[in-house]
This record gives sequence, C-alpha cells and structure tokens, in this order.
Amino acid sequence: MRNLQIQLARQPEGAPKVDDFRAAAADMPNVRPGTFLTRSIALSLDPYMRGAIAGRHMGHTRLNQGDVIYGRCVAEVMESKHAGYAAGDIVVLESGWQQFYLSDGGARDQVRKVVRRTDIPLSAHVGVLGMPGLTAFAGVEKLANPALGSTFVVTAAAGPVGGTAGQLAKAKGCRVVGIAGSDEKCRIVTAEYGFDACINYKHADWPARLKAGCPDGIDTYFDNVGGEVLDQIVTQLNLRGKVVMCGLMSQYNRIADGASHGHNLGTFVSKRAQLLGLVVYDYADKMTEFHKAAIPLMRAGRLSIREDRVEGLENAPALFVKLIAGDNTGKALVGIAPERA
Amino acid sequence: MRNLQIQLARQPEGAPKVDDFRAAAADMPNVRPGTFLTRSIALSLDPYMRGAIAGRHMGHTRLNQGDVIYGRCVAEVMESKHAGYAAGDIVVLESGWQQFYLSDGGARDQVRKVVRRTDIPLSAHVGVLGMPGLTAFAGVEKLANPALGSTFVVTAAAGPVGGTAGQLAKAKGCRVVGIAGSDEKCRIVTAEYGFDACINYKHADWPARLKAGCPDGIDTYFDNVGGEVLDQIVTQLNLRGKVVMCGLMSQYNRIADGASHGHNLGTFVSKRAQLLGLVVYDYADKMTEFHKAAIPLMRAGRLSIREDRVEGLENAPALFVKLIAGDNTGKALVGIAPERA
Repeated sequence: MRNLQIQLARQPEGAPKVDDFRAAAADMPNVRPGTFLTRSIALSLDPYMRGAIAGRHMGHTRLNQGDVIYGRCVAEVMESKHAGYAAGDIVVLESGWQQFYLSDGGARDQVRKVVRRTDIPLSAHVGVLGMPGLTAFAGVEKLANPALGSTFVVTAAAGPVGGTAGQLAKAKGCRVVGIAGSDEKCRIVTAEYGFDACINYKHADWPARLKAGCPDGIDTYFDNVGGEVLDQIVTQLNLRGKVVMCGLMSQYNRIADGASHGHNLGTFVSKRAQLLGLVVYDYADKMTEFHKAAIPLMRAGRLSIREDRVEGLENAPALFVKLIAGDNTGKALVGIAPERA
Repeated sequence: MRNLQIQLARQPEGAPKVDDFRAAAADMPNVRPGTFLTRSIALSLDPYMRGAIAGRHMGHTRLNQGDVIYGRCVAEVMESKHAGYAAGDIVVLESGWQQFYLSDGGARDQVRKVVRRTDIPLSAHVGVLGMPGLTAFAGVEKLANPALGSTFVVTAAAGPVGGTAGQLAKAKGCRVVGIAGSDEKCRIVTAEYGFDACINYKHADWPARLKAGCPDGIDTYFDNVGGEVLDQIVTQLNLRGKVVMCGLMSQYNRIADGASHGHNLGTFVSKRAQLLGLVVYDYADKMTEFHKAAIPLMRAGRLSIREDRVEGLENAPALFVKLIAGDNTGKALVGIAPERA
C-alpha cells in the first residue's frame, strides 16, 4: 500500500494553477511507539492556504517543491501506539493533503477528537462544525455580538464562513444581508441559508442595491474580502458600527507583488467604526461552546452544511483553484475515503 | 473703524502658501436685536483647517474666493442686543479669521462662555483648554483609557493635541513616548512636557529607536499623522493594543489629488488592534469635565500651555503655512488684541 500525497510542484504566482501541484505516492509510514496512523476521510480546502503555501499566514512556513500541501482532515485512527488515541477514534488534524498520516499527537498537528453522530456527516467537522464555523461563531458571538433587530452584512456569503456567520446572526434576530459573486450564489444564500437579501457585487450598481437592502443602514459588517468592497461598505456603516475583519480574500493573490489595495482610514474615523480583528486561533477553546449553539440549529434546518465536494485527492488542486477564484458555493471539501471503512 | 479679515484668495493646491490668503478691510457689522458683537483676542490655527477650506472636513463647506477663513477665537463681547450675552463676557466662538464678528449665538457659531482666571491666559481657551486639549482628553480618558504602567506613544508630540495627550497619559501613570519631527522638538517634549522619551522620525532608524524606547512594546498609540508612520507603529503594537485615530496630518495635502497613503489592514487584524476613531465633536459636552482634570495639572506645572504665537491677523497665513508644514512647536496662535482692553 502506498500513501497518495499532493505536493507543491512550484510556488504559485498570483492565482494558483493546477500545475503548481503534483500527485506523488509515498511509502506508508511506520507506526512507532508514541504515534498513531490516520486514514483521511475528508480534506478541507480553505482560502488561508493560499498565504500558508507562500509563508504569509501565521504559523506556516513557506513550502518548498516536494512538500505536502498544508491542510486539515477529518480522519479515522487505523493503528495506534499512542496512549491518547485508539484505533477507530475519529479526529480532526493537520495532516496535509494526503491519504495517510502519522501523528505524534503534538501541538503542531492540532489533533481534536470528534464525536460520531448518526445525523451529521463527519465531513462537517472540517466544514461548518470545524474551523470555518468556529471562525463565524467567534466573529458573530464573541466579537460583534450584534443586537436584536440590527442589520448584519457579510461578504463571501455563499461560503462556509460567510454563510454560517449570516445564519448565526439570523438566529440572533438580526436582519441579514449577504454579498456574493453571482446571481446563482445569491439565490442559494436567500433560499437555502435564509438570508433576508443577497447582493451580487458583480453588478455595477451593487452599492445602491446594498443601500436598498439595508434601509436602516449597516450596524455590523463581517468582512471576508477587504479591498474596494470594504471601502464601499464602510461608507454605508452606521455611526459606531462594527467591522469584523476576518479575511482579505481580495488581497490574497496580490499582497506578494505589492499590488494590494490600500485603505483610507479617514472613513473609519468619521464613522467611529469599531475594527475588530478576528483570528480564529484565539478561540480554539470555544469549539464545544460553538457546537452547543450550532448542532441544534443544524438539526432544526437553520444552519446549512452545504458542501462543494469532489471525490479523490487527485482532484483537490482543481477545486482549490476554483475556491481561490471565488467560483465555489458552500464548503470546499475533498472526499478521500468513505466515512465508515 | 474697519474690520480686518483674512479671506481666501484662491484654493490651495497641495501645501497651502501665503499667497492663497489675502487681507481685506470690511465694514463694521451693525448690532441688530438678537445679536452681539465680539472683539477677537486670539485666533487658533489648527491642522483641520486645511481640509475645511477645501470642504473636506465635516460640517465645513468649501470656501470660495473672498470668503473669510474658518477659525475659532477667544473674544470679548463689546456690545450686545442678545439676552444671553453681555458686554465684557469672554467667549470662544467660530468667528473666522477676523477682528470683529457679529454673532446671533446660534449653533453654527458654537459660542461657549469662558471664565477669566488670573493665572491662566485667555488664549489657553483656544489652545490646551480648548478643542485641541479636549481632543487629547477624549482620546486618552474617554477612548483609550490606558492602564497604569502601560506604554503610550503619540505622534505630533510637540503640538497641542499630541503634547497634551502625552501629558494626560503621563498623569495617569503611563510610560509616555513621543514622536516629533526634529531633535529640538524632541528636546522640548522631554524637558518641558515631561515625556519619558521622544523619537525624531526624520532619522532613518527611527523605528529601531522607537523599539528601544518602548522595551515592553506599545499598548496605546495616539495617532495624529496616519501614513507610513502609522503602518510602522502598528507593527510594534502589543496584541490587542489600541490605536486612537485622531488625525491624518500626513494626508491632509494629499487626499485631494488621490495620492493619499493606503493602509494594509492585515497588520491591524493580526494584532487584533482596536481602532478607535476620535471625532472631538462627540465630546463637546465634556469641556467642564476636561477642565476639572486639566486646570489642576496646569497649576501644578504638569500640563504645558506652550504657544507658537504671532501678533497681528496679517501674520496668520505665514503661521498657518508653517503649521501645515509641521514646523511649529506648541499651540499655533495669532494674537489679535490684548487680553484686557
């Protein structure tokens, strides 16, 4: 048996291409005392990976040719010589883009055990119940805490962070308006995620449409994109409105070549805007609290776990390219093995 | 008797020049019922005026040729047919750059009565006891509220806002480090204002000097300049540090031509920085509270009212040019008439 891996073929320039990655078959690792071997079930693909590959994301060193790409999987323990883990345990861990992984359970691997539930797929634990969902929960519940009846706007609304943020704000009694990159995405955001409205920012008059969709102005803006969209939304912010700065998706390909968009802080000052920088690692100990809030909403049909999924690790690069291009809807996931072996 | 005024000769392009202004003698206004006539004692010159002239500062419409320049004076009521004011009253009001002004006491003039104290010059009421001081008080006491023993950094430290902010933070038990534009300014900031250190940002290695001056990092940054200095200081901010955004001095001449400096918000996010937009008008009702804090400090020699003063309204343009160029130290003031007639 061999271990299929996706490695870096070359550092991407600007938007990543499929050819920046390569598949390779490595030897199966040997289970030494103090380690355990996992079989990857599903791999999460996330925008932060673009910066991580280049060494621009906190805690990730720049990858070299031949390195396995960074990534988090939900996986099953196949064999264990580690006191903390037994064969059959389900874990989420930083295994990278590969079929099998040998972990020592150390901090670098960020191993977290997961409870198997009959009504929730395991893949949700690297999606809406994983980091993307926790990110949304931290921004909505821990940072912004938007008031009942206030207006909450979120970008990348069709994605797992934006979509979950909006659904959590909706559950807290906000008017929720999404922003997404196509009419079809907007349809899903309103029909499936239950947002009050969704604006396609590819229409030239989107700022006017947003204003019409937010008749009482914007109280909270959950920002996943930065750039010109952020600048425009801040002008529509109510006095002392909050801006949760979660991601700068529009900048991820541009920062390296110095072409990133510079923000004029004058509007932030005149609005007395509260800029709230969100780094999900600050909330690593809030996963249980998040699940307590999210799982009942999921069961009540008020929190979607929509996936944009491909099967087979060899198809991961193409989905990643699509994700960075902003062309996917729902959580980008690669199915690697069946949920039950 | 004629009323000497300074009017706009032409809209400044970039940094203002003396020729952008002109002196003119207008007729003395007629005191109608419901109005009162003031004699200007001292005129405050402030950086915000650069934007106000061009219509880029809140509440100020763009000036046309021949309009009197916006400005705030401490003045004495000479004659009154207004129930709220009597001859001899001392007021601060928005009279513009002129010797005499007829006010109806309305909101536009922002008239505020001032108590004459034997040991404090009236000019302080448009300086450290006026808007610049209130701005510093609002930023230090109402927004940042820096902790005892924390490190507080402020730019434009030789000026009335920065200097007062630092002295108030010092009175609250902070380690206070100023940033100013010359070694002579830095000398005044430490020797006269009592800052713990002051860095001249014109030295190429000023970031390293600042780091050396802040061995425990920066907890609060009171920003009067924006631009590249802000970007650099944010990199030295402690996690969850506060940035009081008070002024964007470095941008005032540049915003109009689209050459303003764009900030990358990524560093704000990774620092989880608190961006606190300061607009002094929000604190107009806090003047009495501010004086209660400031006057005892002043009397104890712990709050300087240093003035950069010229005599005669005709010398106002040259001082304003110097102010915008960043070449003055202390509060820029124009003496127009003696404090006691």
